[in-house]
Order: sequence, then C-alpha cells, then structure tokens
Amino acid sequence: MTDIIARYRIETCLPVEQVAETIAGEQSSGTFLPVPGETEELKARACAKVTEITLLDSADAPSLPGGRTPKGVDGPLKYQRAEVTLSFPFANVGANLPTLVATVCGNLYELSDHTGCKLLDLELPPAFGEKYPGPQFGVAGTRELAGVYDRPIFGTIVKPSVGLSPAQTAELVRELGEAGIDFVKDDELQADGPHCPLKDRVSAVMRVINNLAEKTGKKVMFAFNITDDLDAMLRHHDTVVAAGGTCVMVSLHSVGLAGLVELRKRCALPIHGHRNGWGLYTRHPLLGVEYPAWQKLWRLAGVDHLHVNGLQNKFWEPDDSVVRSVRACMTPMFRPDDTAMPVLSSGQWGGQAPETYRLTGTTDLMYVAGGGIMAHPMGPAAGLRGCNNVSASVNFSTPSPLALMAGSIVSAKRAHWSCSPPATSPQCSPPRPSAKVRACRRSWCPAGIC
Amino acid sequence: MTDIIARYRIETCLPVEQVAETIAGEQSSGTFLPVPGETEELKARACAKVTEITLLDSADAPSLPGGRTPKGVDGPLKYQRAEVTLSFPFANVGANLPTLVATVCGNLYELSDHTGCKLLDLELPPAFGEKYPGPQFGVAGTRELAGVYDRPIFGTIVKPSVGLSPAQTAELVRELGEAGIDFVKDDELQADGPHCPLKDRVSAVMRVINNLAEKTGKKVMFAFNITDDLDAMLRHHDTVVAAGGTCVMVSLHSVGLAGLVELRKRCALPIHGHRNGWGLYTRHPLLGVEYPAWQKLWRLAGVDHLHVNGLQNKFWEPDDSVVRSVRACMTPMFRPDDTAMPVLSSGQWGGQAPETYRLTGTTDLMYVAGGGIMAHPMGPAAGLRGCNNVSASVNFSTPSPLALMAGSIVSAKRAHWSCSPPATSPQCSPPRPSAKVRACRRSWCPAGIC
Repeated sequence: MTDIIARYRIETCLPVEQVAETIAGEQSSGTFLPVPGETEELKARACAKVTEITLLDSADAPSLPGGRTPKGVDGPLKYQRAEVTLSFPFANVGANLPTLVATVCGNLYELSDHTGCKLLDLELPPAFGEKYPGPQFGVAGTRELAGVYDRPIFGTIVKPSVGLSPAQTAELVRELGEAGIDFVKDDELQADGPHCPLKDRVSAVMRVINNLAEKTGKKVMFAFNITDDLDAMLRHHDTVVAAGGTCVMVSLHSVGLAGLVELRKRCALPIHGHRNGWGLYTRHPLLGVEYPAWQKLWRLAGVDHLHVNGLQNKFWEPDDSVVRSVRACMTPMFRPDDTAMPVLSSGQWGGQAPETYRLTGTTDLMYVAGGGIMAHPMGPAAGLRGCNNVSASVNFSTPSPLALMAGSIVSAKRAHWSCSPPATSPQCSPPRPSAKVRACRRSWCPAGIC
Repeated sequence: MTDIIARYRIETCLPVEQVAETIAGEQSSGTFLPVPGETEELKARACAKVTEITLLDSADAPSLPGGRTPKGVDGPLKYQRAEVTLSFPFANVGANLPTLVATVCGNLYELSDHTGCKLLDLELPPAFGEKYPGPQFGVAGTRELAGVYDRPIFGTIVKPSVGLSPAQTAELVRELGEAGIDFVKDDELQADGPHCPLKDRVSAVMRVINNLAEKTGKKVMFAFNITDDLDAMLRHHDTVVAAGGTCVMVSLHSVGLAGLVELRKRCALPIHGHRNGWGLYTRHPLLGVEYPAWQKLWRLAGVDHLHVNGLQNKFWEPDDSVVRSVRACMTPMFRPDDTAMPVLSSGQWGGQAPETYRLTGTTDLMYVAGGGIMAHPMGPAAGLRGCNNVSASVNFSTPSPLALMAGSIVSAKRAHWSCSPPATSPQCSPPRPSAKVRACRRSWCPAGIC
C-alpha cells in the first residue's frame, strides 16, 4: 500500500521546514496542541511526512492576509516561496475521493503559518484506480459516437448563452448540423430554466439531429447541460438517452464529486465536464489548486471530456498554462485509456487550431468555438462551411480549410473591434469594450457583424 | 417571479461600470462578440442587469494576475475596488442550486476585465425556498436530540484527528461521556479509512454512548463523518441510524451540492456541515466567495449545523468575520426555522465562550473545542468536568464553570508555549512552533501537558 503524495507551493515568513511540518501535522494526526493519545507509535503510522522541500523565489509582502509573523523579529520580513511535497498514509484516507479532498485541500488553506498555499499535483495509490472506474468513453468512445477520427472534433456552443427557446435552439442546431458540425453544447448557464426547459429542448434538438442523421449518416453530438440536483440529473440523463442523444454536460463544481461519481454509475453517455468556477481555484498563484491535481480528481470520478480553456482565450490564462492542462488530461493515471478528452473553449475560432496542434501535438481534442463561429459575418453556418472538408488527412501545421475559414472571422473581428462611429452620428458614443454588443450594432460598423 | 440578486466586490483598472456590464453579459445572454440571435427583445428578457455600483478604495497594483489594461494609457494605473450588484432573471436559471452556482460563481472569475472578483451575498427568489426544504433539524431539532436547552451545546473533536482505532475512539468517547459532554465529532480527516473503518467505529462508539444513555438518560450526540461517494454515504448513514446514532457529518466541499441535496432527502439525522477547504474560497479579499453567500447555498441544500471557525481561532480569520458568519447562519431566509446551528470550532477552549456570547448574543451555538479540551493537563475528562454544572440558567456574561475550567487550559497553554529548555539539556534545541509536538514533550515542559 503506497502513500498519497501531494505537492504544494507555499509562501511563509517563518522557517519553511517548520511550516511544511505544521501542514503535514494539521492534515493528519496533529492539531495545534499535543494531545494525550498522539503517541510516537501513532505518529509514525498516521502522521503525514514532509518528503521534499525546494526553495523558490521570495517576496517583500505577503500574498494572502492573516499570516502570523515570527516573534521578536525587527525589520522587514522576507516571504519565502517553496515547493513542498507531503506524503499522507493511505490508511488514514482509503480510496475515498471526497475524503482525499478534505485531506489534501482541506483546512490547510486557513493556517496562519503561511501566506500562500496551492496544491500543484497529486500522486495516488493504485487503490484509487481500482475503486474508481474513470472515464467510461474517453477519447475512443467519444470519437466513435461522434463519428470523427484522426482530427479534432469541431464544435460550438449555443449562443446566446441563455434566452433562446427550445425551438430556436433546435433551429440553430439544424443550421449548424447542415453545415457539417461535429459537436454542439449547451452553455453552462442553460440547464433546465423555466424559459428553456431541458425536456423540451432535448425533444426539439434531437428531432433535428435524428432527422439529419437519417439523411446524412452523421449524428451531431449535442452535450445537453443536465446540471441539477442528482435525481433531476438522472431524469435529464434518461430523457437524453430516450431521445437518442449522445452526450450530457455537467458543471463540475456546481455538482460536486459525490454527485458526479453517482452520475457516472448510471450514465450511458459521455460526460462533458465544464469547469466554470475554475478561476476561483486557480487565478491566484498562491491559493487553491492547479490543473494537474484538479483534473485527476474529476477523471477518477468519471468525466470523459474536460474543459481546458483555449489558446489566446478570452480569459486571463496564459497559453502555456492551457497547453499544460491539455497534456495533463492526456497523461494516463492508472490505465492507458483513463485519459479525458481535452475541450478547448473560450474565445476560440478556427484560427487558433493550427497553433493548438503545434503546441499540443495531438488531434485528440474537442475544439469548441462559441462566439467565434456563431458571430461569423455570414452566419454560423458560413463559419462552419470549411469543416465538411476537414478530413482524416488534415495537416494542422499548414493552413487548413478551418484555418482559412478562421481568417475571415479574424478580419471581421479586427474590423469590428476597431470600429468607430462617424463624427456626424448623433446617437453614437465611442464604443467601449463593455458596450460592444450595443454600441457596435450600428450601420456604420465596418465588420457588418451586427 | 423575482430576480436572483448577487452582490460582488470587484477590482479593475478599466471603468467599473463597463466591467460590471461585462460580467452581467458573460453570466447571462452575452459572450465576447455579439451573436446573431442576441436580439434586443432577448437581451431585455435574459440579460443580467447591473443595479448598483458603490466605489470603494483603490490600489496601485492588481490583486490578481491576468487583468487587461486600457489601451493607450501611459503612466501608472489605478485599480479601483467597488461593490456591484447584479440582477439575474430567474427564468434563465430556475430553482436549481447547482446551476445557480454556475451562474453566480462561474466563469466570471476568469474574466480579464477585472483583477479581483468576490461574491459577497445573494438574495434568492421564493422559488428556491419552495423547492429546497432547507435544514431538517436546525437548532430546535438538534437541541431535542442532544437534550440540551438554553445554553450552547458543548463538544469536542476526536483527537488525534486520525490514527486511533475504533476501540480507542470509543474509549475516548466513554471518558468524555462520563464527564458529561454533549457532543463529539469525528475529525474531517477520519471518515472510512482502512485503519478505522466507519462501520467498526460506529459499532464501538455507539455501544459506549447507548450504555451511558441507559445509565444517565443523556445521549451524547456523535457526528460520524460519513463523507464519501453517495452510495457509501447513504450506507454509512444507515449504519449510524441502525446503531442509534443521532448525527452525521459531511465535508461539504468534498461532497458537493448535488450530493448533499440527495443525502438530505434520505437523511434521518441532523447533518453536521464541515467547511474544510473554505480558506480556498475566501482567504483572498478579492477572489472567491464570502460566508454570507456561501452559507445560504448549503442551508438550502439541507445542512443543519455549519462550521463558522471560532473567536481567537488557530486559523487566519479575524474575529469580526467569525461573528458575521454566526449571524448569517442565524438569519432566516424563507422561514423562521431555516437557520443552521453555527458550530464554533478551531483552536477553541472554554475561555472564548463568554466573549463569544457577548459578541453573538446567542446561546444557539455548538461550541466545539478539540485540542483545547483534549490537551487539558489532567486529561480530556478533566477539561470537561465543569460542563455537568452548566445549566439552563448559565450566564455567559459572568465566569461560568466552563470558563473557569478554561482558565487552567489557558494557563497551561501559556506556560507550554513559553517553555524553553534548560541551557544544560543536551538533547534539546529551542522549541519552534512547528516542532511543538515533539520538542515540547520533554520533562522540562513547565505546562506538564506532555
């Protein structure tokens, strides 16, 4: 039986070794005072161990508030950063994903001994791989259901994110399906709201998808957002299955690990894992969790597709972090097929596809462009026309039909973003980024998007 | 049908109003480009609205990385903080707790328009109160099961946190129960690990508790940590019920909302909600979630007891924040009885009880001292001896038996922390806080704790 290994980045103005020991104690057999039953024998068996410390840079000010300072020290303090590796006895935890989280991501964030603590990565004993089945479909199963091989799966997101009726959503899917799209997903904001109930949406969308499949032999994979309480998720899942659907989507943080593990047991379709809320976990470099650790938990719980953001994304994340996330999803944990299919999404359009291929070296990706396709000057279908020509022999290192298609979107975007109202326009004020949706819907917008 | 109201603290070097609009758009009908179906009618119905902006202080440097800066601006930037209130149409979301989280705590943290975003509070439409039953036992039901009225419920945590066998745990409970304790809880690290399987622990501990109850008429409430996958949690729950137990504990972040809602449906006992991992959500003032918003989600999901940290706690949190959390738990949402019982824990001992009462003005509290009781110089039972005398007439504004008991612990702690080895001691090095458990277990420790 091997230990659970967790690697952290910490920051402290106290001795690093001491703080690492405090974290190890707090997260295993210790507390803030010695207690009677905490014998040497018990500690040897149950106390987590500090196995490695690597000093990093230091700072003049603390990253997080509430850190205690050493007594009797005058003058400015140095906040040392370090990577520390802890080893937790498996016998404390067992192959129990939720309690693993309480152990490696629990109270330690609140300790005043540090001014920064981020879980970087995890190594788990084989018992976790034996207990948790991992992805049911993964890359191979998803490709089979989508009928797409040897190239990325190209897709989009229903936009507007919320506000379309079931019939309007289905009409959009018809347009996209006829243009040859592989994959469409609900926005994470659209689950089972009163304006667009999931049952009606499934019915309307699957009628379109099934009709198209009869005509063309290609069944568009639609990830219906079933995020809800567990009984409702299972009911939604059954609705999707009964209508011939091939994918369900879940907002992972909203549902939680126990909900996902239970869904996985009952699920007959690939689970598309949306990571919304992820910024909360990771945007600060010294608080939370990094992707390599995080994705292992969700893969074990059974997710088949995992969002990784995208290159040149609309969010804050740098490209090298996105590439690292892609690689993490594709690195086997316990079996060659326990990888999750990375989903590139957020501010994507075809233009990033070749660079994505160059940096990740794989076509085992879902490439999901929402606004980047839906806002094409000539409509969503036009944005996808090139996709029909993308074949198994596509070489992403040279301009592909998708990349060429992307060119027009890039140009349109550039023109759109740089548009200014004519000086004589009475009702216009200079467009600001936040007002883009409204201010640019003017006849003078050179992009013609609106 | 009323809207969902969410209040945030944000930070940005762009115009605040613009950023608030971007967040509102991103979390409802908008995306980073205007899309064809996003009509004025749809936006009027589905787009979230910015209803209030209050400027706060500003800073010279961004709190979080990855924020974009205004184009064409030379010189230093000002990072303005503000409180912004957004109103989300209920028809987008429905009474769906997980999708509520995706809406108010979702992608918005990743937007490069801001360098800080924290959800402060939520106001939810009555539909949430109709859909979700809230706490099943709450304050009144917990008091009835514990047989404790008109004063706080006094308790402790099994320590060492992990490493005791079921029999050792039961022996500790016997000692505490004989001393008159009201409540004992598993540590969040001790769930169903191989060294102390839950089934065996329940069996051993409940035998002791049931025997004591037969003798004294008082049944100690023990919160068994059933944190696990859902099927295991339900099985553990049934085990506790069958053995005559009166409480189950769950690590909320580990299990997730969907898991908790499902547990609540099947649960015959109060759910003791442990917030470990909470530091990740809240330690940074400009990232994550604050307690008033967070606790509403878990109360709706059905938790009966909620951890709030404690005064002068061992963690980083200041006292005023703890007091605010207590008040938040006790403020009704939809019904007078949908409050959760606040659990004061973390570095507590009897000494804080009077001040806790003074600041919170209530005795509807669970007061849980782990190390503070278990490390009493004369053993855990001695630390609790005063509890038997605490009666319905206790006045926490004057020294109580508990407070008097606490005095000895405070003295012992002070002596313990200030202990130094004799200069002649060959094997000793000066004790450091991290090394307290080992270094202070010396014969020269004046506290005599070890």
